[in-house]
Formats: sequence, structure tokens, C-alpha cells
Amino acid sequence: MKLSKRISSFQASPIRRLVPFSNEAAEKGIHVYHLNIGQPDIQTPPQVIEAIRRYDHNIIAYGQSEGDKDLRKALPAYYRRYNIEVTEDDIMITTGGSEAIQFVFMTLCDPGDEVIVPEPYYTNVGSFAKGAGVVLKSVTSSFDDAFRLPDIGEFESHVNERTRAIMLCSPNNPTGHVYTEKELHDILQLAKERDIFLIVDEVYREFCYDGEAFLSALTLTGYQDRIIVVDSFSKRYSMCGARIGTLVTKNREVLDGVMKLAQARLCPPEIEQIAALAALQTPSSYLDEVQVEYQKRRDYLVKRLQTMEGVSCSHPKGAFYLVARLPVDDAEDFCTFLLRDFSYRDETVMLAPAEGFYVTGGMGKNEVRIAYVLNIDDLERAMDCLENALEQYTRRTNSN
Amino acid sequence: MKLSKRISSFQASPIRRLVPFSNEAAEKGIHVYHLNIGQPDIQTPPQVIEAIRRYDHNIIAYGQSEGDKDLRKALPAYYRRYNIEVTEDDIMITTGGSEAIQFVFMTLCDPGDEVIVPEPYYTNVGSFAKGAGVVLKSVTSSFDDAFRLPDIGEFESHVNERTRAIMLCSPNNPTGHVYTEKELHDILQLAKERDIFLIVDEVYREFCYDGEAFLSALTLTGYQDRIIVVDSFSKRYSMCGARIGTLVTKNREVLDGVMKLAQARLCPPEIEQIAALAALQTPSSYLDEVQVEYQKRRDYLVKRLQTMEGVSCSHPKGAFYLVARLPVDDAEDFCTFLLRDFSYRDETVMLAPAEGFYVTGGMGKNEVRIAYVLNIDDLERAMDCLENALEQYTRRTNSN
Repeated sequence: MKLSKRISSFQASPIRRLVPFSNEAAEKGIHVYHLNIGQPDIQTPPQVIEAIRRYDHNIIAYGQSEGDKDLRKALPAYYRRYNIEVTEDDIMITTGGSEAIQFVFMTLCDPGDEVIVPEPYYTNVGSFAKGAGVVLKSVTSSFDDAFRLPDIGEFESHVNERTRAIMLCSPNNPTGHVYTEKELHDILQLAKERDIFLIVDEVYREFCYDGEAFLSALTLTGYQDRIIVVDSFSKRYSMCGARIGTLVTKNREVLDGVMKLAQARLCPPEIEQIAALAALQTPSSYLDEVQVEYQKRRDYLVKRLQTMEGVSCSHPKGAFYLVARLPVDDAEDFCTFLLRDFSYRDETVMLAPAEGFYVTGGMGKNEVRIAYVLNIDDLERAMDCLENALEQYTRRTNSN
Repeated sequence: MKLSKRISSFQASPIRRLVPFSNEAAEKGIHVYHLNIGQPDIQTPPQVIEAIRRYDHNIIAYGQSEGDKDLRKALPAYYRRYNIEVTEDDIMITTGGSEAIQFVFMTLCDPGDEVIVPEPYYTNVGSFAKGAGVVLKSVTSSFDDAFRLPDIGEFESHVNERTRAIMLCSPNNPTGHVYTEKELHDILQLAKERDIFLIVDEVYREFCYDGEAFLSALTLTGYQDRIIVVDSFSKRYSMCGARIGTLVTKNREVLDGVMKLAQARLCPPEIEQIAALAALQTPSSYLDEVQVEYQKRRDYLVKRLQTMEGVSCSHPKGAFYLVARLPVDDAEDFCTFLLRDFSYRDETVMLAPAEGFYVTGGMGKNEVRIAYVLNIDDLERAMDCLENALEQYTRRTNSN
């Protein structure tokens, strides 16, 4: 019995290859600081938990395929805070941002069609592309250029008759770059000229630092019919396990297409939509405090990394990740060392080798993505581990 | 901007085309009995609701991509009641049975690969097939032969080098047929000879009538590595809005493939997995009572339909649907009439035109699927509507 070529083309991600080593470390009694995934230690707003605890239906019935009316009605007021003018009819509720990305790929692309994405990029986009038969074409945003978007000509050189869209993530996972108005404008102008779509993952919208103002692509006028925004409650309200996302677009045809896929899978999770509705009532002080907390964490992390010999890192303006370059040849080997062969005060740290965040093979070999999702005390201990491990590892490697 | 051919190939289902008429009827103050969808009026077991109300996490965090350990550990005991011997390692939790079907198609098939399915069939399988580029080849199980599977030669004639699997649903949606040991054995023998998989949707396992014993494909020995069972909590515990399903197989390679897709979408809904875990503690008396209730509803529905002039129907042995043949040329037109032009005591009934349940164009034109998901009082009033409407409609049609 043969499996599909499609599924065989999925490579196990470097992060996944590390999981057994992480489990073994934990079994040996070593505490592992997980800076490898975007699971924050921030508490979910209490009224979200309360809303779940007040659940009072007798039947957990199917909801609407496009998402519950109450939730869709409540969202435009949230978006208005970012000057995004949408109505409930422009919004579909999806099972996480993940499903929104899959819906968009299937609606815009046939197998063999292409989407242009700046690398490094959110790895799972690669899996969703493979699932839908979409070919990702990458332009490289460079570590040495603070991960700014490359010149628009780079994008243009990849547009051909199979190109259906450009996909961005802003603020960016994994680089932390927040796209500027000029960057967005240039991309949109190109999209218009070549008659393709712009997909923007804006799930980290709230997490911008140093007074940087977030700008949604949807606020740029003259392009609205070609913009599809992918969004999620997961990071914003620290409710990653409640799989509620949204897909926002002014393009009716796209929504009609997406709706066909939504109807086939019946509806998004109902109880979690109630949680999401409650999340929208979160006082802005919660989001403000979270933003301040992440900025502190970023500051601390950058400061620590800068003092480590041979380490350099991006100075992220948003999201809660950064990419660091390490004085090693093979970051995956070093991450394995951290988990399998190292501990400091019975602790160690798990990082994500950055190779998996690049489309182009061989890139990011000496880079890691670090998620600053833990509090500063934990970050401090994790960085102590990293610092010690780098010393041990480079000594060991040099003496080989 | 072009959308994909993939999405354009999705036709709006006849059921979906009726929704605006149903909404209009409701707006006119006409009560619509919804026998068109599988949304039961049965209460969710109270301890499921209680488990949701006891939710006490501070952070709704990501769970495992394969599903929560507790839930996976609790499932083998449930399956053992049906003599299905599986361990937690054979089980993945999915976001509804819907996701399980999508995962299987993507794991087994490349675009253009084929799956053989008896028609009439569960319509959304057609959408999932289109999404994954899978071509469905149908063998017809005939109304006049009580929807038994056709001769195995029919299946065999469709197997070619692109065939990856045969897919069954037992007890069947929409026909109510429960596949016999011989039918399953013959299919599995063919699958073995031609080295293809058998996918079985067993979400209606509990709903078998007249003392009919449900037999899972997984209990037939000698074929286990080629069987993939798709399952769901939705109908069993009347919790359709909690999108929790399972995918069960002894085939490691398939599970490894499915796991790649599961990891990309991160995890199934967390809160609803807690609900599902509580559902497994439901006393068997709940399921017994539900089964008795559905059998009563079926008996009532069949009795009523048999007394209507020109109407014939399948005598379902399982699930909670039946297919009825009406004395009309175009069941969709009649269903539209029911909603748009008819009412009786300010009520009407919504049925599903059966055409959408056939792969072969033009089949099922004079058939409807009726879901007996409402209590007998409601069914009685719904059947009064149907009886009156048929009289009016045929009189009207004949006088044209």
C-alpha cells in the first residue's frame, strides 16, 4: 500500500526531531525551558475561563459554518481599534489561524500554483502549502539587514503566470520584523500590477515594541479586494488551545469560495467560540500589560544574547520571537547537545533550529529561533544554560 | 484575480440552495421542522456539560498534536465494547470526523488518485475529495435493493493503478444500511488482493436497530494494516458542535503521515477534548435509551411514509437517516415548494434532496434524505406537513 507523494514530501521539522531528546531530559529529572514554541506562560483573561464555566446549553449543537453570529458581530469593534473597517460579513471564523491559511491556499491555488513568501517564515505555512499542492517561492529577508523585506524587484522576479499570491506575516514569526507602510504599499502595488492576492498573517498585531505602531494591510486604500488577513485569538489572549481564528477579506468571491470549504467541515468548535467572544471583552489594560511584559522580556533576552561570545541576534520590533546566530556550525546539533548531553543546575533550554524556517535549503544552519514566552526569571535561568552550553559545546567541538 | 479551479468545482449542494427559503419561511413566522440535517434534539449527557463547567486551567494552552493523552488513553476501553482491540498508540484525536477524512485523503492520495465509494454517500466526503484533488469513483447501492452493496465485481471493475482506497460508511448515512460481515469481508479481500486501503466511517456505530449487531471492520482478522476507521463523538453523545473525532488504524506508516498534518495545525480544540473525555464516562443506559428512542422514531417515520400515496422508503437498520422516493419528478423543486409556497398549521418541514448524495449526475432526482433527529411529536407534525404538501404539490403539478 502506497502513501501519497504529498505526505512523503513533508520532512520532519528540526523542532520535531528534538522532541524525543527533550522528553528524555525531562525523564532524567532535568527541567527544560521551552523557548522553542510559541506557548506563552501569560494567563488567559479570567473572564474567558469564567465564560467557559458558565456554559449552559443542554445540547452542544452544530453552529454556523461561517462562525457564530454573536462572535462575528462583535469583531468589527475590535478591528476598528486598528482602523480596520470591516463588517461581520467580511469575517469568517475558522478553527485556528491554521485553518484560515489552509482555506486561503485551497481557494486561491490549484496544485502547482505558486505563492511568494519572505523567508525565514512560519514553518507550518510550508506544510499547508504541501497539503494543498502549492509551491512556495521565497525571497530572503536577511539576518544582516535586520530582516527587512528585500527590494520589491526580488518579489517581482518571482511573479509568473502560476503566481496567485504573496504571503506576509506582520509582526513576523520568526524574525519579529514589523512591516512598514512603505513595504506594505510596495507589495500591494506589485500585487495590483500583476493581479494577484496579498495574504497577511496578523496574529501578533498587539505585540509591537518601542512605540512601533502596527499597521494592517487592510488600512491601505485602493487594494482592499485583493487582501486576505489571517488572524487568531491564540496569542493575543493566550488561548492557543482554543482553536479559534478568523479570515477577513472584502473580496466576496474569496469568501464564497472559503465558505464551501467551511460548510464541508460543518462548523468551528462551539464552546471555544463562546470563550473567544468573552475574550473580546478583555479590558485593554490586559493587552497593554502583556505588551509591556513582552517588551521587557525582549529587552532582557537581547541584552543577554549580546553579551555571549560569538552570538548575534535580531532586535525584534514585534511578535515574541527572535532569530539568533550562534558560534556553531550546526544549530540542530547544538540544540540536540543542549537536550541530550548538557545540564546546568539540573536545567536546560530547548530552542528551535532556524533551518526549518527557511524555504531555501542550507540557510539558517547556524541560527536558532528563540520564543520569549517565559517570564524573566525563567528567561534568566534559560540564558544561563545557553551561555554555559555554548562554552562547553564550542570547547568540545574545538578539541575534536 | 483568479480563484482556483479546485474551488470552482465545488457545487453548492441542494441543501445549501434551500437555506434562504428556510430562512424566509422562518421570517414569515412559519415553524420549520429540520429533518434535513443530522442535528439531533437529544440532550448531551449532563456530565459532559458539567465537565465544561468545571474547567479550571489558567491558560488554555496548546495540547498534543495527536490529541490529549488522557483522552487517547480512555478510548481503548470504549472500543473494546465493540471487540475492537486498539491501544492509545493506534488513535489520533482529530477536529471532528471531518478532519479525520481530510487527513486520510491527503495521506493516501495525490491529486488524481482515486477512492471508490458506494453511492448514495455522505456528501461532504465529496468536498473533502475535491479539496485534496481525489477523484471519487462510485458504485451504486440501489434503492430497490435496500441499498445493499453491489456485487464485489462492481468494485473490482473500478480498481486501477490510481486507486488508493475504498471508503464505506456503516451504519450508512444516508441509507441506514448496516454492512454485513460478508460485505465487509468481500471488500477487505479485494482490498488485500489489489493492495489498497479500506476507510470506514463508523460514527453511527451505536445506532443499530432490530437487534442488528454492529460489526467494525477492525474486528475482521487478517486485514488490520489496511483499515482506517474514522470516528466522532458528535452523534454518539449529541455533541456535534464539539469538534472532536478520531482516526483509528494499526498502520504505523499511515499514522506517521497523518501526524505530519496534525502537527502543522498544532492541536485539536482543548476544552472540547475535556468534554469528550467526560462523554466516555456516560453510563451505557444513556446510549441504550438513545438507541431505543431512535428506533421508535424510525418505526414511526417508516409507518407514516408507507401510508403516503406514491411514497416508498428504505427501512434503515442503523444511523438516523432514511432515503424516501417521492411521487415527484424533481425532489429539489418539491423541497423548495415546502419552504417557499407551503405551510400547514403555520408549519412546514425541510428535507434534503437526495441528488447531492450521489456521485453520478442525475441519480436520486425523486428522492429525499430524511433525518429522524426530532422527537415523535415533532415528527408527527412534520409528516402531517409532508403528507399535505405532497397532495397539494402533485395536484398543482398535474393541473399545470
